[in-house]
Amino acid sequence: LRGSRLALARLLTQVENDTLEGRAALIELFPHTGKAHLVGVTGAPGTGKSSLVNQLARFYRNPPQGVEKVKIGIVAVDPSSPFSGGAILGDRVRMRDLSGDPGVYIRSMASRGALGGIAASTAGVVQALDAAGYELILIETVGAGQDEVEIARLAHTTIVVEAPGLGDDIQAIKAGILEIADILVVNKADRPGVENTERGLKNMLQLARPTSKIAGVGKPGHEAMTASGEGNLLTQERIWSPPIIRTVATEGEGVEELADEIQRHREYMKASGAWIKREQMRLQAEMDTLLNATVVARWHAAMDTQIYQETLRRVLERQLSPREAVLKLVNGDSR
Amino acid sequence: LRGSRLALARLLTQVENDTLEGRAALIELFPHTGKAHLVGVTGAPGTGKSSLVNQLARFYRNPPQGVEKVKIGIVAVDPSSPFSGGAILGDRVRMRDLSGDPGVYIRSMASRGALGGIAASTAGVVQALDAAGYELILIETVGAGQDEVEIARLAHTTIVVEAPGLGDDIQAIKAGILEIADILVVNKADRPGVENTERGLKNMLQLARPTSKIAGVGKPGHEAMTASGEGNLLTQERIWSPPIIRTVATEGEGVEELADEIQRHREYMKASGAWIKREQMRLQAEMDTLLNATVVARWHAAMDTQIYQETLRRVLERQLSPREAVLKLVNGDSR
Repeated sequence: LRGSRLALARLLTQVENDTLEGRAALIELFPHTGKAHLVGVTGAPGTGKSSLVNQLARFYRNPPQGVEKVKIGIVAVDPSSPFSGGAILGDRVRMRDLSGDPGVYIRSMASRGALGGIAASTAGVVQALDAAGYELILIETVGAGQDEVEIARLAHTTIVVEAPGLGDDIQAIKAGILEIADILVVNKADRPGVENTERGLKNMLQLARPTSKIAGVGKPGHEAMTASGEGNLLTQERIWSPPIIRTVATEGEGVEELADEIQRHREYMKASGAWIKREQMRLQAEMDTLLNATVVARWHAAMDTQIYQETLRRVLERQLSPREAVLKLVNGDSR
Repeated sequence: LRGSRLALARLLTQVENDTLEGRAALIELFPHTGKAHLVGVTGAPGTGKSSLVNQLARFYRNPPQGVEKVKIGIVAVDPSSPFSGGAILGDRVRMRDLSGDPGVYIRSMASRGALGGIAASTAGVVQALDAAGYELILIETVGAGQDEVEIARLAHTTIVVEAPGLGDDIQAIKAGILEIADILVVNKADRPGVENTERGLKNMLQLARPTSKIAGVGKPGHEAMTASGEGNLLTQERIWSPPIIRTVATEGEGVEELADEIQRHREYMKASGAWIKREQMRLQAEMDTLLNATVVARWHAAMDTQIYQETLRRVLERQLSPREAVLKLVNGDSR
């Protein structure tokens, strides 16, 4: 709470390892949370998410006039890390860019260790950064696994990053994550095919959000805003239509426009009541995740290991199917 | 069991929806399972996994002399589908290729609906195909999320697909899944940069599998085999070093070599006892997953919803942290 980076680093390690100290600290810190703007950044591999996140951080640390300079937390959830490697490498690359700035804190998370799951672990890390006074927290995930999508979905603002020329598999991923996008970014917009990518996004957006089409208010928010100068406030409050922004993150192009949209989305969320709703969704999801993990842990602790081993043996010999075995174990019937 | 595709299709839907009928059927079918060779195919988006899987299926259905013609099941776990879209599209593309052959059964799975998780759902679908007499089952996943890696890991043989020129994010993913690879494929090998990709894989393989390096037997199995004509049987039985195969799936190039390696890995697994070990790992993982889901479901069914709602309200007002709330709920302490 006093701003010690060393204390924060130690806390985050405790939280990631789900130690008793980490748990106790999160309980004490909880009343200090709820201030940060949580921004999820997700997208397929190869879209340049990390560069974009770095550029956003740089922008907020050296803002143009009229934009508030805020403390930035970055939480990178690294998909490579059910096993090893990637997270540390990513850290080093980022460090070169943003290190030395006390207003930036970067944490790469391995999916690996995460006892109780990566989503729970990320929630704890974000809470700690929030309590430590980081005002805008960028949560970077790869938009492929269900875990990653869950994490991104629980941010206040979710940015989905796309890039031209990434092939068919990527198209498929897009369809899934478009439903959770608040802002769409076509990064690497200096590459050929950028118009196609943007057109594809617009089409998929209509498919993914049929409600806005049916309701007849599916006009992209950005266009509405620029067309009328200030937009239709009523429509704006009722429904958010994800704008599509072009960026070239490596050159910093489009980053200011993206920051504008993040700010605009924040204002929309606060005004519409959606901000509080997402807060509640996130807290309930976190509570339910912890609840399930705790219930399972208690059940296992109370279970007779000899009965478990004997039941497992019968499954391995194909005398019992896994489900029959489970019913026997849960009903306390060892025969 | 009599080979009706219609019955199988209905069963798979029941299994995917985790209905009572589906559960009962899997219990009855369980003694008929354990015959199929389960081959996981995983890799980052854009590597061409689907084409490779299709070509493998085609190869096994029209084998050259000396290779057994086997019935092929394909289970495609689609990452796009926490929400919608991709799975059905993928199905149509595949259908064009392999439809009409009664010896091929293709099932695309949405990550979405999967009550009890996609891993449990996939296990059930694979068991049903196994019981229905499909002798080689290709399980295709995107190697990014933890779920997908878990699924691939539990196959008898895991193929990790790579391709030249996919950017840095992909590199990071590679590090994670290399540890589970039994066979490495560099697909799209007609593209520039194939030597770099292959060299990169070799280097990462050494990092990811330091044990084989330390033991001094880290020579790629493939080289050992071709150099000596039949390989060193003793080394072959003790340790498997993943070979690297180049393919151009769209042209069918390298597919026969890949099928050879799959066969060689199968023989190695059977001879070394690793086959039985993976069977046991898979069944135990399946049992544990079901067990956890069942324990949680029972606990929730028994819980007083009024107390739950009241506790949640206090969390949303930040009077209680999620963890404090869970402890109160689990200990039956509603104050």
